[in-house]
Amino acid sequence: KQLDGLIIEPTRSALPCANSDLYHLLSEQGIPVVFIDSYYPELPFPHVALDDIQAGWMATDHLIGRGHRHIACILPHTNRQGHLRYLGHVKALREHAYPIKEEDILWYSKENMNQLLGGQSLIDALAPYTAVLCYNDTVALQVIETLSKHGKSVPTDMSVIGIDNSEAGRYAGLTSIAHPASKLGEAAAQQLLAMIGGNGAKNVLFPPNLVQRTTVRDL
Amino acid sequence: KQLDGLIIEPTRSALPCANSDLYHLLSEQGIPVVFIDSYYPELPFPHVALDDIQAGWMATDHLIGRGHRHIACILPHTNRQGHLRYLGHVKALREHAYPIKEEDILWYSKENMNQLLGGQSLIDALAPYTAVLCYNDTVALQVIETLSKHGKSVPTDMSVIGIDNSEAGRYAGLTSIAHPASKLGEAAAQQLLAMIGGNGAKNVLFPPNLVQRTTVRDL
Repeated sequence: KQLDGLIIEPTRSALPCANSDLYHLLSEQGIPVVFIDSYYPELPFPHVALDDIQAGWMATDHLIGRGHRHIACILPHTNRQGHLRYLGHVKALREHAYPIKEEDILWYSKENMNQLLGGQSLIDALAPYTAVLCYNDTVALQVIETLSKHGKSVPTDMSVIGIDNSEAGRYAGLTSIAHPASKLGEAAAQQLLAMIGGNGAKNVLFPPNLVQRTTVRDL
Repeated sequence: KQLDGLIIEPTRSALPCANSDLYHLLSEQGIPVVFIDSYYPELPFPHVALDDIQAGWMATDHLIGRGHRHIACILPHTNRQGHLRYLGHVKALREHAYPIKEEDILWYSKENMNQLLGGQSLIDALAPYTAVLCYNDTVALQVIETLSKHGKSVPTDMSVIGIDNSEAGRYAGLTSIAHPASKLGEAAAQQLLAMIGGNGAKNVLFPPNLVQRTTVRDL
């Protein structure tokens, strides 16, 4: 036996899984598999991830709590975390009886990401809003840079919140939602070892934490 | 009672359904609902649609049968039909033991569609291929127009297949997979009337048909 188990981080997890049959083969052969960060709901494997719905909810609820009513969201089409964060965003809007409008969401893919985030089209797209929830800190920092290049300052002209609490975000003073990156790895390894040891596995979802810094202002 | 039933055609059905709770409310109130063309798998309603997996399979199987080995696919991120046609495409590749490569799929969204399909970037993207499977006839005709503008002729330089068998496609001599549009409407109405009459409903999938014209050549 050359393989005791696998930890898999899927990319583009909101696109169809082209390797479904290979995954089912792993399952039939009883090889323990744990998904980390995201997952395919049609596959019979446990996953370890941030509670992405709750993360999206928390970011939007924070913006609403600071007085924002017109909130844009920048999210990837292509991975499930983006979809789940969107569902959390919508949940927060609904709880506050704010309208849910398709045009408030800027969906991107790797193909149009730089075009969407890098220039005047972003400034135009964000004009109706006072705050923007970004899929992750990388996107948030790119948005802040583009705003700055076009003479807009954060948070005076636009509040920005990210998700990940990345090192770069910390240096930049970005308000973000913490993603327990190394804890995820630990938990995934624990799950896998438990499965290798013959124990059942379960999904593990980590609660998000809000880290307030300087990129969101009261309105 | 002011509403006996609903036929719903979802848009962007591969993005999360923001109105899940409203749909569940319809379900709890026992209002008959039939989805047409696409659906959300998490909702408890039947759907009437083209067998999109089979359509994608049939298009790719035809291209392979005509001798093509290097096939690009142009598909939307955003709706389930695109995802299912992709799964059919992959199924055909696998049956022929052809490699499945992420870069062979050009995923588009309405935001980057014109940019992707309209210019030199499409010519560059298609350079490694002898054939391209387009999500629908509209996309196929735009691809043919762009190829033509750049001095490439179809099918001499590139074979093109669409899905829908649209009127415009028929005039243009496009090889396509027929989508039984009006039959879908009939079947959806029949399902809905059956449900209103107290009978159970079921999913109805229509088989695709290949319509050979002049845009695919033997290799």
